[in-house]
Amino acid sequence: MDYSLENSFEVQEKIREKKVAILPIGAVEAHGPHLPLGTDNILAERLADKIASEVDAFVLPLLPYGQVWSLKNFPGSLTISNQTLIQLVTDLGKSLYEQGFKVFVLLSAHLGNITALKEAARHLYESTPGLTVLSFFYPGTTEVMNQVREGEKVHHTYIHACEIETSIMLYLAEEFVDMSKAIKDLPDIPPDADVTPTPWERFTRTAVLGDATLATREKGEKIVTLAIKNSVRLIEHAKKRDRTTQ
Amino acid sequence: MDYSLENSFEVQEKIREKKVAILPIGAVEAHGPHLPLGTDNILAERLADKIASEVDAFVLPLLPYGQVWSLKNFPGSLTISNQTLIQLVTDLGKSLYEQGFKVFVLLSAHLGNITALKEAARHLYESTPGLTVLSFFYPGTTEVMNQVREGEKVHHTYIHACEIETSIMLYLAEEFVDMSKAIKDLPDIPPDADVTPTPWERFTRTAVLGDATLATREKGEKIVTLAIKNSVRLIEHAKKRDRTTQ
Amino acid sequence: MDYSLENSFEVQEKIREKKVAILPIGAVEAHGPHLPLGTDNILAERLADKIASEVDAFVLPLLPYGQVWSLKNFPGSLTISNQTLIQLVTDLGKSLYEQGFKVFVLLSAHLGNITALKEAARHLYESTPGLTVLSFFYPGTTEVMNQVREGEKVHHTYIHACEIETSIMLYLAEEFVDMSKAIKDLPDIPPDADVTPTPWERFTRTAVLGDATLATREKGEKIVTLAIKNSVRLIEHAKKRDRTTQ
Amino acid sequence: MDYSLENSFEVQEKIREKKVAILPIGAVEAHGPHLPLGTDNILAERLADKIASEVDAFVLPLLPYGQVWSLKNFPGSLTISNQTLIQLVTDLGKSLYEQGFKVFVLLSAHLGNITALKEAARHLYESTPGLTVLSFFYPGTTEVMNQVREGEKVHHTYIHACEIETSIMLYLAEEFVDMSKAIKDLPDIPPDADVTPTPWERFTRTAVLGDATLATREKGEKIVTLAIKNSVRLIEHAKKRDRTTQ
Amino acid sequence: MDYSLENSFEVQEKIREKKVAILPIGAVEAHGPHLPLGTDNILAERLADKIASEVDAFVLPLLPYGQVWSLKNFPGSLTISNQTLIQLVTDLGKSLYEQGFKVFVLLSAHLGNITALKEAARHLYESTPGLTVLSFFYPGTTEVMNQVREGEKVHHTYIHACEIETSIMLYLAEEFVDMSKAIKDLPDIPPDADVTPTPWERFTRTAVLGDATLATREKGEKIVTLAIKNSVRLIEHAKKRDRTTQ
Amino acid sequence: MDYSLENSFEVQEKIREKKVAILPIGAVEAHGPHLPLGTDNILAERLADKIASEVDAFVLPLLPYGQVWSLKNFPGSLTISNQTLIQLVTDLGKSLYEQGFKVFVLLSAHLGNITALKEAARHLYESTPGLTVLSFFYPGTTEVMNQVREGEKVHHTYIHACEIETSIMLYLAEEFVDMSKAIKDLPDIPPDADVTPTPWERFTRTAVLGDATLATREKGEKIVTLAIKNSVRLIEHAKKRDRTTQ
Repeated sequence: MDYSLENSFEVQEKIREKKVAILPIGAVEAHGPHLPLGTDNILAERLADKIASEVDAFVLPLLPYGQVWSLKNFPGSLTISNQTLIQLVTDLGKSLYEQGFKVFVLLSAHLGNITALKEAARHLYESTPGLTVLSFFYPGTTEVMNQVREGEKVHHTYIHACEIETSIMLYLAEEFVDMSKAIKDLPDIPPDADVTPTPWERFTRTAVLGDATLATREKGEKIVTLAIKNSVRLIEHAKKRDRTTQ
Repeated sequence: MDYSLENSFEVQEKIREKKVAILPIGAVEAHGPHLPLGTDNILAERLADKIASEVDAFVLPLLPYGQVWSLKNFPGSLTISNQTLIQLVTDLGKSLYEQGFKVFVLLSAHLGNITALKEAARHLYESTPGLTVLSFFYPGTTEVMNQVREGEKVHHTYIHACEIETSIMLYLAEEFVDMSKAIKDLPDIPPDADVTPTPWERFTRTAVLGDATLATREKGEKIVTLAIKNSVRLIEHAKKRDRTTQ
Repeated sequence: MDYSLENSFEVQEKIREKKVAILPIGAVEAHGPHLPLGTDNILAERLADKIASEVDAFVLPLLPYGQVWSLKNFPGSLTISNQTLIQLVTDLGKSLYEQGFKVFVLLSAHLGNITALKEAARHLYESTPGLTVLSFFYPGTTEVMNQVREGEKVHHTYIHACEIETSIMLYLAEEFVDMSKAIKDLPDIPPDADVTPTPWERFTRTAVLGDATLATREKGEKIVTLAIKNSVRLIEHAKKRDRTTQ
Repeated sequence: MDYSLENSFEVQEKIREKKVAILPIGAVEAHGPHLPLGTDNILAERLADKIASEVDAFVLPLLPYGQVWSLKNFPGSLTISNQTLIQLVTDLGKSLYEQGFKVFVLLSAHLGNITALKEAARHLYESTPGLTVLSFFYPGTTEVMNQVREGEKVHHTYIHACEIETSIMLYLAEEFVDMSKAIKDLPDIPPDADVTPTPWERFTRTAVLGDATLATREKGEKIVTLAIKNSVRLIEHAKKRDRTTQ
Repeated sequence: MDYSLENSFEVQEKIREKKVAILPIGAVEAHGPHLPLGTDNILAERLADKIASEVDAFVLPLLPYGQVWSLKNFPGSLTISNQTLIQLVTDLGKSLYEQGFKVFVLLSAHLGNITALKEAARHLYESTPGLTVLSFFYPGTTEVMNQVREGEKVHHTYIHACEIETSIMLYLAEEFVDMSKAIKDLPDIPPDADVTPTPWERFTRTAVLGDATLATREKGEKIVTLAIKNSVRLIEHAKKRDRTTQ
Repeated sequence: MDYSLENSFEVQEKIREKKVAILPIGAVEAHGPHLPLGTDNILAERLADKIASEVDAFVLPLLPYGQVWSLKNFPGSLTISNQTLIQLVTDLGKSLYEQGFKVFVLLSAHLGNITALKEAARHLYESTPGLTVLSFFYPGTTEVMNQVREGEKVHHTYIHACEIETSIMLYLAEEFVDMSKAIKDLPDIPPDADVTPTPWERFTRTAVLGDATLATREKGEKIVTLAIKNSVRLIEHAKKRDRTTQ
């Protein structure tokens, strides 16, 4: 349910009922030739809507700017610092708490945001007792991703504009995918990429981390369905839990 | 033109051509019984689209959170601090400058953002020579607002959920206005409201500052048409100007 | 009454009686050939003394440094950042509140300070319940300024080293004005000056915004008399109001 | 020479000649029954004027607020944080450097400011090569103070509202001293006062650290004469030194 | 080689030769009944010494304080914030760069530090071109840990005072382990622990995450040997790489 | 007693008994040809151990990085900013207070740290009522240092790698002193060194401030014995004092 379409004469009662606010968070970031810069924004919004309808939550307006350090030098990418993102989410959390929300879901479709979101969640843990803050990036789906992937896996953690992310887009937002332009790119990620700051231009010019041509709607559906199931379970758990007495 | 739908293989050339990025900025804020919490967001986006099509600019994804100090205690309102907003816009300005943009338009449909936006613009003035930053809130329309207004004017500067703002909504986004709920509220704003921090609950319970029942699409059209004309002229001027040589 | 001439053995009782502290705030800034760099400081002090004697308030020592972004590149100007000014005034407000004051008047004779002063006032609104903070820059005098002005008005808001400000100086501090050097300068302020950061060297070399030769003591008297009257009324209102119960 | 009485049409040439700006810095602080809250401000201004006339320097407007941690709970005291003071002085130093000054003298008559002033001086050392920043608190006068003192010395470093400071006031600003109220107070400063934060209310109710009744104009003259001589020598040295080549 | 035992007359030449500085970083944190609070400090130092001797690097003095959010409420734990840790490491990195080092190894034996260390590494990436910063927490050992573990694995990522960490201690610092007190604790970590801030007192009172009684020196040796091998390879790679030309 | 060797099952009771935590703080800094870079670290640790055994306190792990502005350009020196040091010590103080400590001793063997430590102590004074914070740098030993010194005194306050500091090292840590390399250097410290930021390369190339060849174990013993005696007395005083009722 779209929070921003509510009006202030009726919203208070609904907040008391629903308890949960979901903030979709994405980024503006290079995603290869077949996906738009706003891919993570589209994914965050679509996912948020699906989850919200299952747990009867409010969906807040999309936060479309994220931390894009690794790809910030690619054409089109825009980045904000971790510090800025932490402050923004902390400010919002305080406002939501004042408004009566009990659960604040930070639903990011961009992995690069997670560090800042977790830090913000810790800040809010101290300043807003009674508010549970959840940070999601496709929770509990590592295994299913590995199962559906047919192409080579080029990195143990990153999924970006690849078979996996393109599949998710095909399921959630097919109209923004141009499969005719999808490419296969298996960059040789240097061995130190996990231990030293490594802008991606060091190993790829496409920003595609795998074989996007293998993407299918069905693969995406499997991942998204599980992500939603896990998200719903975690939110329902948080709704029942009363942080103030724990 | 929607920046986030571009892809990174083609966007660079287009940035060089267009030069201009428009960031619509709104807020989530109480707007009376007839307008949604997201009114300023809807307005910012619609205005940005109209202006962009006239000056051939990119429209960036909406920034839907703003500084809502005065109304932050009203049901549904969400606020971020001036400091957070300054940092966010400054970060984005630096990214846009790195990407090659020459003009960055901060188009806010929420007056409360302007202080932070002007401060961010000054920070960027030093750190991004060559980028012109413009801050808009219906530029040059004070007079036409006074002309079209039939009801009483309750404050010299604020327009909020009133005859004026509702008219603008009727012209730009009629589908989100419920005129059957529009009310007239002429709060007695205390004489010190301009000189001391004054949360609006001190003088209104509705957050409507005037007679919203007098709103019409035609009034809105007059204001918006002029705002667009002025915005276009200012942007065209900025495109021609070369900040680095001035 | 000069706060800094009190001694600590007697001041506490007087604070309880007077309740009000007025902080005159100015700037060191280019003011044309006929006015000194410290014009705004002189004005703030003189005004503060006059107002204080009418409302029986303490006058704090002058804060002579302000935010002078627009004129900072003119010979002689000194500037501090908004952030610095906000912190300084917030620190002082907390101290005054600890000392027992109920009303803190930020009396600036320099328009550029107002943004920071209003932000500081909001910070203090949260941290010092029971303290009312008022920010003044010739309150309620726009109309009388327009009435007395005979020369051309070059900007809708700025008054600087012009017919108006020189008149105020002639009334409050004639000994610092050299009318033999007063000049007329009608700069063509660019249309974008209100929407983009615009250092004044873009449009003037004198820093005089109008015809200073038309300044008279009588014009100044009209403006100052009204400014004092309005200030007194607002301070008396604040003294009666009890912020803690509102 | 009073910087703030200059005008912007003539000041640039004078800065080039004089090279030196002296900033008098004081505090608003309890000073016993016989001295006003603004004692340190008066002293800083008078000293600055005397030194400036000997080295042909500009005197900037007094900064009347300082770090008053130890006495902040005494009636009348006002304090700002070290952080705020550092930022303020750093901002001013940058401005002075832009205006062409070569030497920036931080002349404090309040010992509590020195920590912040030295930190600001270090910040400026990096950011303004070519500007020499000097921090003074009666430089080189410890010995003469010990010589002239007839009463008991209650602390190895502090001088406050005592025989010494009152003597200096008698010499520099007799009209603000009420010797009929001068008292003798020999507080027993706890042995840990130098190693743990110790608000002075722990050991004194008067804020007088010694026997103020023994103060004389002559004692003050000896101290001030030496302080001026030392200050002049240090400033002349700084004028000759070219920081950029050292 | 212990950096702090060098003297300033000879160190410069050695820095030029060695190029690499290793900073061991630990924490003071509850580690069950059989391991001391300083376990991570001991581990970091021992590991650093072993690696340094293989790559001929300098070992810097141990940084013994880390970010201990999750266990900060356990008896004995001490924590510093991420922000503080980021600043500290960034300051040190700048100093090392000034001294001529080319590679800065952040060797943490405490997982909770890694977020801050990676952020500091990114800050240094911008401010110290030519310095490669590596962040290590037993690099590349996940698999071998899973192989040697005989007991139940209670969390996918955390290793703490358990079979694994105790084994490492037995290999690197047996004298600090009291196996007679080692316990088995298989806490039921709540399903939301990965997505919401979860102080460990929510699921354990011992802070032991597994079966410490199964720890052996041999298991530890396998892990440490691989960690060293991987670290050495990464450092050698960094020494050869010239960041300024990449 | 070494805090980091305690375990979390037993430490709480011991904290209640001992009440006192001593943090040794040093620096990595050029100390001439005969003393290692880590001299201040060694001294801080040795002193802390001796004092702790007399007052039955816990010794925390050494903080080996300090503010080394004056010598930061000498080979081998590493520096962190005052701001970083303040935050670090403030964070630790809060943690110690949460753990139940009543007295926090900041024992620095590096003079350059004292400004930051005193500022941190003041921050903690407000935020941790009930915790007494003591800052030590050889308390109360100025006189004995002057007595034992046979060589020339080159500065009224600094002791660095000279007769005095080398003597202290000979007494506390003879194994790290190479007297065969000890030198005499009597730099001519410029008269403005106390009033303007003065990196020591302006007056010395050795970083030895005096005649280190005159150092003896006996001189060191006298100083250290008194420093310990004074420290013990101050700590015992702090243990008895109850800050919450004062």
